[in-house]
Amino acid sequence: MKLLSKTIENIDKVSIDSDGKIKNRFNKLAIPTGSLGRLEEFATIYASIKGTPDATISHKVVFTMAGDHGVSSEGVSAFPQEVTRQMVKNFLDGGATISVLAQHAGARVVVVDCGVKAEFEPVDGLKIKKVGYGTGNIARGPAMSREQAIKSLEVGIEVFNEELPNGIDIVATGDMGIANTTPSSAIIACLTGADLSEVTGRGTGLDDIGVEKKINVIRTALDINKPDPSDPIDVLSKVGGFEIGGIAGLCLAAARHRTPVLIDGFISTAAALIACAIEPKVNDYLISSHKSTENGHEIALDKLQKKAILNLDLRLGEGTGAVLAMNLIEAGVKTLTQMATFSEAEVSTPLELS
Amino acid sequence: MKLLSKTIENIDKVSIDSDGKIKNRFNKLAIPTGSLGRLEEFATIYASIKGTPDATISHKVVFTMAGDHGVSSEGVSAFPQEVTRQMVKNFLDGGATISVLAQHAGARVVVVDCGVKAEFEPVDGLKIKKVGYGTGNIARGPAMSREQAIKSLEVGIEVFNEELPNGIDIVATGDMGIANTTPSSAIIACLTGADLSEVTGRGTGLDDIGVEKKINVIRTALDINKPDPSDPIDVLSKVGGFEIGGIAGLCLAAARHRTPVLIDGFISTAAALIACAIEPKVNDYLISSHKSTENGHEIALDKLQKKAILNLDLRLGEGTGAVLAMNLIEAGVKTLTQMATFSEAEVSTPLELS
Repeated sequence: MKLLSKTIENIDKVSIDSDGKIKNRFNKLAIPTGSLGRLEEFATIYASIKGTPDATISHKVVFTMAGDHGVSSEGVSAFPQEVTRQMVKNFLDGGATISVLAQHAGARVVVVDCGVKAEFEPVDGLKIKKVGYGTGNIARGPAMSREQAIKSLEVGIEVFNEELPNGIDIVATGDMGIANTTPSSAIIACLTGADLSEVTGRGTGLDDIGVEKKINVIRTALDINKPDPSDPIDVLSKVGGFEIGGIAGLCLAAARHRTPVLIDGFISTAAALIACAIEPKVNDYLISSHKSTENGHEIALDKLQKKAILNLDLRLGEGTGAVLAMNLIEAGVKTLTQMATFSEAEVSTPLELS
Repeated sequence: MKLLSKTIENIDKVSIDSDGKIKNRFNKLAIPTGSLGRLEEFATIYASIKGTPDATISHKVVFTMAGDHGVSSEGVSAFPQEVTRQMVKNFLDGGATISVLAQHAGARVVVVDCGVKAEFEPVDGLKIKKVGYGTGNIARGPAMSREQAIKSLEVGIEVFNEELPNGIDIVATGDMGIANTTPSSAIIACLTGADLSEVTGRGTGLDDIGVEKKINVIRTALDINKPDPSDPIDVLSKVGGFEIGGIAGLCLAAARHRTPVLIDGFISTAAALIACAIEPKVNDYLISSHKSTENGHEIALDKLQKKAILNLDLRLGEGTGAVLAMNLIEAGVKTLTQMATFSEAEVSTPLELS
C-alpha cells in the first residue's frame, strides 16, 4: 500500500504546452497551419508530458501483463484456460503477434506474470510477480481480496520502476488472460454505468448464444459481488483480474514518472478506467492507440474522453494496437523536432486572401 | 503514346489469394480467427499482388510529383505560386514533412519536376521531367494539350521504370503544386458526378468566401473546357495538372510491375481516378492510405471502393499520409510471414462452445 500511495501522491497534472512554445514552433513550420492534423496533437501531448519541445523518443517498451481468470470455468471464452500459459511462452519465444509487432516498432517487450495458473521458469524478458494462481470465479464470489487488488496494482508499479533504469520514453500496455474480456466488461459497466448489453462482446470468438450467456455471467457477478463504483480498488477486487490491476498500476507508475502511455484495446481501457478512478490526473498521460471491435470499447474511451488513433478492426490485445500506434506518435514528434521553418526553408508564407 | 499503351497492355488483374494459401496460413496462426482485423487484409492484398505468401518489404519509395497551375492566378490558394519551387527545394534539403516522415518510414524520396514554373539545377533525388512551365489557367482554357496529358502520364511511367533497378517493393504517391486542389476537385466532380460543393474544400486554408470563389472558378473551368467524363485523358488535359498526370502514370507503371501503390490524399486520389478510368485493373494495386480532411475525399475514395487506413485529419499532401501507412502494411505482412502457428507454438485451438 505504501508503494501505491507514494506513487499516486507524486503524479503531477500535465499542463498542455504551458508556455506556448510547441504551438509556436508548429506555426513556424513550412506547412499550412494545422495541416499535420493529429500528428500535431500527438507531438503536443508528448512534448507537454516531457516538458520540452525538443523531446525525442528512443526507448519504447510494451508491458504485456498476463493473468488467469476463475470465470473461464463458466464457458465465457472460446479458448481453454491453459492458453494463457501457452501464450506467455509464445511471447517469450518471439512467435506471437506482439513479439513481431513490437520488433517492428522497435519496442522491447516485458512480459509479466501477474497471476497465471501455472509456474514459469525464470527467463529473460519475463517478470514473475504472481499475485495468485488465477482469480476466483466472479460468478461465485470476488475475483480477489482487497489486499490482492492493491498488490496487483503494485506489481504494475514495480515492473515499471524496475525497467526504468533501462530507459522508458513511452509505454504501451498489453494483456493476456483467457476470459479477461468478461471482467473487463464488468469493470466498464460498473465504472461507466452502461448497460451490460452495450459493453459485452464476442471476445475471442463467441457466437450470439455465447454472448448472451456471458452477459448473464457478468450480471450474476455484479449482483453477487456488488462492487462499489465509487471505490475503484473495490471494483478491481470484486470483478477484476490480476493483469488488469497490473496494467492499472503501470499507468499510475508511468504518470508518476511523466511517461506517456499508449493504451491498447478493451482490457487495457478497463484497466485505464480503474487507474483514472484511483487518480484522475493519470488521464493526462494516457493516449488511446486504437479502437477495438469489441462491443463497448467506444463507451469506455468516451468515459476517458479519448479518441483512438487507429481503427483497424483489431481484437487481439497483447499490446498489439498500442505498439502499432507508437510509430505515429514518433512521426508527430519528429515533425515537431526535425522540420524546417518557413524562414529556414525560405518558403513564402500565406497570402492575405479575400 | 507507345510507352503509355505498352504499359497499359501489360497490366494484369490481381487474383486475391487465388490458391487460398494466405488465408490458410492466417488460420493456422496462434490467434483467434480474424483478430488481426485489417492487418490481415493488408497482408492479403500485398502478398496477392506479389503472388506469394512469403513476400517481404525491403524497398519503399515515395514519388513526390511537383507541378504548377495557371489557375493559381485566380486566387484559389492561400499560398503564392512560387511556393511550389520553394517546397521542391525543401524536399531536396530534407526539411519538409515528407522528408522527415519518409526517413521515419525507411522510404526513399524521389522528387519529380513534372512542370514547375521554374528551373532547377540537376541534383540527386530530383528528376527533371518538365511537361511544361505550369499549366494553363483552366478558368480560361485547357490546362494542357492532349499530347501534354499523355506526356505527363508517361513521365510517371518513366520515373517508376528508371527507379525500378534500385528496388521498389511498394510505392507511395505524393504531390506538390500550389492550387492543385482546384484541378483535383474538377477531376473528381467530372469523374464521380458529384456536385462541386461536395468536392471542393479549403485546400491550404481558404475561408468560406474563398471556397465559394473556388467553386465558381471550377464551375467556369468545367463549363469552358467541357471535359468528357468518358475520356480520362481528355479530363486530365482540360482540367488536370502535370503532377496529377505524373501520379496517374506512376499508378499505371506500378500496376504493370505488380507493385502495390499507397495513394496519398485528395490530389493523389484524383490522379488514381484518372488511372483507373484509363485502365480499371489498376485499382487492384491501389491502397488508400488515409482520409484527408479535404471536402470530397471520401466521395473519390468511394468511387474507387477504397477504405482509408488512417484518419489523422491530415491535409498536406507530399505523400505524407501514404508513407505513414507503409508502416501498417509492413506490420500486416510481418504477421503473415513471421508469426508462429498454433502447432509451432504449442497453443491449444478454440473449444467447441455452446
